[in-house]
Amino acid sequence: MWRQLEAIGRHPGSGGYRRFAWTGADADCRAWFRAQAQARGLVHEVDRNGNQWAWLGDPSAGDAVVTGSHLDSVPDGGAFDGPLGVVSSFAALDELRGRNARFTKPLAIVNFGDEEGARFGLACVGSRLTAGKLTVEQAHRLTDADGITLPQAMEAAGQDPDAIGPDPDRLARIGAFVELHVEQGRALDLTGDQVGVASAIWPHGRWRFDFRGEANHAGTTRLVDRRDPMLSYAQTVLAARREAELAGAVATFGKISVEPNGVNAIPSLVRGWLDSRAADQTTLDTVVHGIEKAAREYADAHGIHLDVVRESFTPVVEFEHALRDEITRIVGSDSNLKVPVLGTGAGHDAGILSGSIPTAMLFVRNPTGVSHSPAEYAAEDDCAAGVTALADVLEGLACK
Amino acid sequence: MWRQLEAIGRHPGSGGYRRFAWTGADADCRAWFRAQAQARGLVHEVDRNGNQWAWLGDPSAGDAVVTGSHLDSVPDGGAFDGPLGVVSSFAALDELRGRNARFTKPLAIVNFGDEEGARFGLACVGSRLTAGKLTVEQAHRLTDADGITLPQAMEAAGQDPDAIGPDPDRLARIGAFVELHVEQGRALDLTGDQVGVASAIWPHGRWRFDFRGEANHAGTTRLVDRRDPMLSYAQTVLAARREAELAGAVATFGKISVEPNGVNAIPSLVRGWLDSRAADQTTLDTVVHGIEKAAREYADAHGIHLDVVRESFTPVVEFEHALRDEITRIVGSDSNLKVPVLGTGAGHDAGILSGSIPTAMLFVRNPTGVSHSPAEYAAEDDCAAGVTALADVLEGLACK
Repeated sequence: MWRQLEAIGRHPGSGGYRRFAWTGADADCRAWFRAQAQARGLVHEVDRNGNQWAWLGDPSAGDAVVTGSHLDSVPDGGAFDGPLGVVSSFAALDELRGRNARFTKPLAIVNFGDEEGARFGLACVGSRLTAGKLTVEQAHRLTDADGITLPQAMEAAGQDPDAIGPDPDRLARIGAFVELHVEQGRALDLTGDQVGVASAIWPHGRWRFDFRGEANHAGTTRLVDRRDPMLSYAQTVLAARREAELAGAVATFGKISVEPNGVNAIPSLVRGWLDSRAADQTTLDTVVHGIEKAAREYADAHGIHLDVVRESFTPVVEFEHALRDEITRIVGSDSNLKVPVLGTGAGHDAGILSGSIPTAMLFVRNPTGVSHSPAEYAAEDDCAAGVTALADVLEGLACK
Repeated sequence: MWRQLEAIGRHPGSGGYRRFAWTGADADCRAWFRAQAQARGLVHEVDRNGNQWAWLGDPSAGDAVVTGSHLDSVPDGGAFDGPLGVVSSFAALDELRGRNARFTKPLAIVNFGDEEGARFGLACVGSRLTAGKLTVEQAHRLTDADGITLPQAMEAAGQDPDAIGPDPDRLARIGAFVELHVEQGRALDLTGDQVGVASAIWPHGRWRFDFRGEANHAGTTRLVDRRDPMLSYAQTVLAARREAELAGAVATFGKISVEPNGVNAIPSLVRGWLDSRAADQTTLDTVVHGIEKAAREYADAHGIHLDVVRESFTPVVEFEHALRDEITRIVGSDSNLKVPVLGTGAGHDAGILSGSIPTAMLFVRNPTGVSHSPAEYAAEDDCAAGVTALADVLEGLACK
């Protein structure tokens, strides 16, 4: 199962994955999902927002137990972030069938569309739309780097862009959503555990900093005559690191776009994206405010016009305590595993949905903590422990 | 003549020109050149390196007077850098025919290929090949951002890539090359003159700085665990400005490429290109050495691997004094213009050829000094003065 998925969207040069929403690689991942569902006699459907579902039992019965994750990737992402949750879901179902488990509730495996937001700049588009946390108008305005809008991309992939929107009836039929995910830090590695349960997702957001100066010849324009936005950008990158260090938070400029981006041209525009997260809202506000204030001072000093736009924001997510405690008990009692409960700086579809339905997350140990990189890794043993833990949880929730 | 050329390769969004070597826009410019040549009864030919020539008289007679420039552009370049020299050449010929000038030497108008190096990263490819300053092997290794090699691009445009190489016989038949160009600084504006003559081109070069760190998740990777190359890059950008200021030179990071370039990913690679120029070689060496030294210190402090590659270098060019003085005399005596003689930080095909044949340059006033930008501008009056000056020079050199 893993092998078939392994080759899809992998870049031969970097060894990383480039599975972006509504591209050919995405379509291949979706075809793989449909085939897995059909091979297990599950009913496959694609919802109005392009999320894929594989149902065991009657969805309309209500109180369904849902598991799954996503199959798309960041640019040059790893093999585990997303796919591990989907593959483990199918494997857990296989394990439960081996145990002759009797399901008393409908069960579904889901592949949420466009979780990483690599193409259109907004994460968790599929789950946001479903939960009503992204309006149809906002979604229709999303545009990729080539100027292709989300509706155009969906249409090209055979998905009706006019059908998108909130899906409360679907959510009302779900009793619990459990997402398994490779850990994106080293907490489990440091405690020596294979599997953990999520407590909360840090608040986080993305801000776009547009530094606009004046394009000019790099060889003939005197330094005093320049309005070079690269200088203010560079100062702001360093300010972000300082502010994050001071606050015990994280802040990253990992994406940049420069115009005209010529070796012998002073840029007219340097556009940098800030990703920042912290354990609580006040700390995050302090960090981002500090970075923006510094950036404005640098821009003013160089005659640069600065616009700062918040492109996305997700408040702190505390996963429902009852479901979290039940899952911790199930995983701990059945396998004699010690089960750490830990927070995370990464966003997930489970976080988006937690405002609408009870959600929880299982993490599988990541020995290096490396994520969003071709070097992302989880040991086979730990993945197997994750499948067993997920099977136990699904059995505990759907077979009681 | 100007109107037909105006629309070619102009980007509707930026208003700037994107006429890159061996693209469709380049082909359109070349077709325009051929049509202009044919309309004037000139013999059109494309040489082994893709440079276009329009001949009046017999090339094999020797001691030819050649004028012209280039039609390609930097990304989002202006309308004048390059095309003004080619258009003025045809206009000067028209003016000389209006004067019933009798040519005693062959005259040619030239359009040198790939002057800006916007696509393959090396400037003046056409004239470098002709002058033997770029080997066939080096040229065959040039690759654009999409991985297309120069030979592939030439072949796709119908030019034989195996034919390229030095062209000493062609150069031996040329007695003088005069290139008219819009000034790329404000020297003529500050002195109040319409036209000037070039004294020298500053030594300049391009260096690629590859900062390699480790891709990781921007939300979950602790600051102390990061090897983020964006930080060393930012520090190096600021060091470049400092070093250039100290030395009275220029240094610019105007082009960048980031991998994976995702909002929520710490980069694995930040590649920045440095363009630096100074009035003399020692100063330039000091500046670039200072920047590289600082960059290595920053990289070491962040666990970043740094490679610095010099991608191109052009030593100082002193234009031939005899030709320069003759041109200064012709332009000054005929029009009662005061003719400043000035240096420039910009590279030109005339600079490349100056090692092989006598070359000279005329500059037309640029009221803002802005260049390599859609805002690049020259007044109609000044352009007309440039045409007259060029006609005088051609008459003085080719009709004596």
